[in-house]
Amino acid sequence: NRIMLVPLIDQEGRPVDFATQKAVGFVPAAEPVLGHNEINYVLDCVQSGWISSQGSYVSAFENGFAKYVDCPNALSVSNGTVALQLALAALGVGPGDEVIVPDLTFAASINAVIHTGATPVLVDVLQDEMTLDVAAAEEAITPATRAIMPVHLYGQMCEMGQVTELAAQHELYVIEDAAEALGSRWRGQHAGTIGDAGTFSFFGNKLITTGEGGMVVFKEPEVAARARMLRDHGMDPSQRYWHLDVGFNFRMTNLQAAIGVAQLERIDDLLSAKHQLAAKYSERLSDLSNQLILPEAAPDTDHSFWCYVVRLKVQDSEIALKLIEFMKARDIDVRPVFFPLHRMPPYSDVRRVGRLTGSSGSSDLGIVLPSSPKLTDPQIAHVCDTLRAGLD
Amino acid sequence: NRIMLVPLIDQEGRPVDFATQKAVGFVPAAEPVLGHNEINYVLDCVQSGWISSQGSYVSAFENGFAKYVDCPNALSVSNGTVALQLALAALGVGPGDEVIVPDLTFAASINAVIHTGATPVLVDVLQDEMTLDVAAAEEAITPATRAIMPVHLYGQMCEMGQVTELAAQHELYVIEDAAEALGSRWRGQHAGTIGDAGTFSFFGNKLITTGEGGMVVFKEPEVAARARMLRDHGMDPSQRYWHLDVGFNFRMTNLQAAIGVAQLERIDDLLSAKHQLAAKYSERLSDLSNQLILPEAAPDTDHSFWCYVVRLKVQDSEIALKLIEFMKARDIDVRPVFFPLHRMPPYSDVRRVGRLTGSSGSSDLGIVLPSSPKLTDPQIAHVCDTLRAGLD
Ligand SMILES: Cc1ncc(COP(=O)(O)O)c(CN[C@H]2[C@H](O)[C@H](O)[C@@H](OP(=O)(O)OP(=O)(O)OC[C@H]3O[C@@H](n4cnc5c(=O)[nH]c(N)nc54)[C@H](O)[C@@H]3O)O[C@@H]2C)c1O
Ligand SMILES: Cc1ncc(COP(=O)(O)O)c(CN[C@H]2[C@H](O)[C@H](O)[C@@H](OP(=O)(O)OP(=O)(O)OC[C@H]3O[C@@H](n4cnc5c(=O)[nH]c(N)nc54)[C@H](O)[C@@H]3O)O[C@@H]2C)c1O
Repeated sequence: NRIMLVPLIDQEGRPVDFATQKAVGFVPAAEPVLGHNEINYVLDCVQSGWISSQGSYVSAFENGFAKYVDCPNALSVSNGTVALQLALAALGVGPGDEVIVPDLTFAASINAVIHTGATPVLVDVLQDEMTLDVAAAEEAITPATRAIMPVHLYGQMCEMGQVTELAAQHELYVIEDAAEALGSRWRGQHAGTIGDAGTFSFFGNKLITTGEGGMVVFKEPEVAARARMLRDHGMDPSQRYWHLDVGFNFRMTNLQAAIGVAQLERIDDLLSAKHQLAAKYSERLSDLSNQLILPEAAPDTDHSFWCYVVRLKVQDSEIALKLIEFMKARDIDVRPVFFPLHRMPPYSDVRRVGRLTGSSGSSDLGIVLPSSPKLTDPQIAHVCDTLRAGLD
Repeated sequence: NRIMLVPLIDQEGRPVDFATQKAVGFVPAAEPVLGHNEINYVLDCVQSGWISSQGSYVSAFENGFAKYVDCPNALSVSNGTVALQLALAALGVGPGDEVIVPDLTFAASINAVIHTGATPVLVDVLQDEMTLDVAAAEEAITPATRAIMPVHLYGQMCEMGQVTELAAQHELYVIEDAAEALGSRWRGQHAGTIGDAGTFSFFGNKLITTGEGGMVVFKEPEVAARARMLRDHGMDPSQRYWHLDVGFNFRMTNLQAAIGVAQLERIDDLLSAKHQLAAKYSERLSDLSNQLILPEAAPDTDHSFWCYVVRLKVQDSEIALKLIEFMKARDIDVRPVFFPLHRMPPYSDVRRVGRLTGSSGSSDLGIVLPSSPKLTDPQIAHVCDTLRAGLD
């Protein structure tokens, strides 16, 4: 006799989210979609008494995720950053190894490399796609290079054919940072499942969320088994408190996983909401094509459009900054593109290859538009109108 | 019009837990106590849409915890292991620094030191208390020693007067691993609040739980501010995506914190349940005093009795192992004491000081009795009777 909520259903039979339709108001950068099953599963955890990383939702979420991305070896973790740390550690990347990282990414990508004790090397990105320039990566290879980390930024996938070819030639591990790219595909294969390991984030602004959370998938079941052991303090699964390796606590809770299971149930709707949003933005902004470069899926890929990122054609970073301020002042939470890593103090000594003009160009001229799947048509119109006004 | 549960109240006006009174059945090593406010606050998170590390329960939990332990600078994190990593990183402990760690502790203590790049040094524990032997620690000091990590094992507090004196003499940081010792005190001061930093765990078996979770408290507000920045990817709090340092993602979710707030409301009850359990065990086992050493609070301390640990008087580790098997076979989840770190492969090269006979003795002859605050009198009787039978 546990309490359960009956899901509200909309006219097409889809579960309804709690949020009521809002006036235009503040337009957030992102927000999660949570409904009755998120509540039901969380209630179930607390009422059953299983809220820690023990509990049946953890494996249910891992299995459901594995099925969705079509890769059997999925491990849930506390967030997308430790997912990268665990991937690197499980593959044995560490001190003395070089790892190639794109200069344009959220800092977690490079931080994870540094935390393993390995040496990151920065290479440029393609200015249009904002993803790893594989030719630049090739130049960066030395005898110490052990791995390459393509980052599928804002949902745009890296050219994985070139990446895997380069990796095969030089015997490098490929660790895909797919934190931002759940639902994206390269030639039908899910982001994160093409390399030796792939990682995902379920922070509150991601396609599906567990509040904080992450997942790592591995090509080889043996590596996944090692990761599982490392995730649980390096403990021997068959002898409690006997430690086989210097492990971590990177476990996801049953509560997080409960939300994750409910989110997986609605992932198709969330993805299609992103696609619709991107289509609406592209349509409404198409007349600005002499001022803006609008995002497009790279060849051979399906783009999740996790975030919709536009770029100014005029080469003037001041204008981008002013535009962001203009829109923020009008209650629209637009965001700058990440800063090139090489510009920031903690990474100033990191070896870099080439002139890194792609990452600078993408960063200086890019603007991330609000990309919540819950944006209403009036909100989308408001964002586009304000952007247009700001450009005048 | 959000859904809220009305707390069930027992005859003394205390909130009632979901679990119904059970027959003796399986006796777990530990289990959380969860009731209606745990549910209400979690419901509130999901219904408000704030489930990530953003959300008001995170600061409410930090503030409530700070008040409880009487130390203003408390930061919530994903678990007790990363709490230690964050404490070390915020204090600037890293490569080239030696950190003194007791040989008897859960491996997370030493793993955190290794992950920062610092060098752990193992010293013995006092066999009766199972806590750091401060005289041994003194012998371990070299010019490279930077910090000392007393671990308050099973709720028993280390002799903090000696620790702080030694640290002051040699200008060492004191990082208290109080993962197991919330509610314990030394001369009235809470475990974790005496050194430069103190860390706590809220795993499902801890005094209060958030599923997985942790807290770190700092003496100095400046160090806490640095930790806050490091916890959030090293990002500049005043400029988004601009990173000041190589940070982590160690954030706690609003969902975890919601449970934490509800747990803090019942912490006095949980602590008194631990005390009562310890008193009952001690009473029922008092006649075995020629075979068992029963736990006692060290001088000047209040012992939380997070776990009730007995030790065989006979110096025969085989008997302890057999006794554990005997009890497990009878559905009682007794646990061995942790293994001395120096015995396990990942730590075999770690420098150690002295003969480490205290840690070996504690580990080989100790047995951790089930310590759930929900154990019923019949269960307690069953545990004691079975222990007595096994000793025969
Ligand atoms: C390439 C790459 N690699 C690795 C990682 C690491 O993953 P992880 O963060 O460790 O899981 C990441 C993750 N990067 C994220 C990080 O998760 C980071 O924390 C986040 O930074 P942010 O942009 O500063 O995040 P924010 O402004 O705090 O939140 C973004 C929006 O989402 C909304 N939001 C977040 N949580 C919630 C919530 O619980 N409820 C509601 N309603 N809104 C929420 C906020 O209000 C904002 O509008 O966004 C970055 C892009 C990555 O992008
Ligand atoms: C000195 C010291 N320093 C640092 C740390 C690191 O903290 P953290 O684990 O990173 O938060 C720790 C934490 N050590 C813990 C770790 O948290 C570790 O994971 C845990 O190991 P374990 O003994 O193997 O844990 P277990 O057998 O999985 O769970 C213990 C009991 O609690 C019950 N339990 C756990 N979660 C739940 C739950 O959600 N519901 C119920 N009903 N029972 C639960 C289990 O059923 C068991 O009976 O216990 C160790 C003593 C520490 O002791």
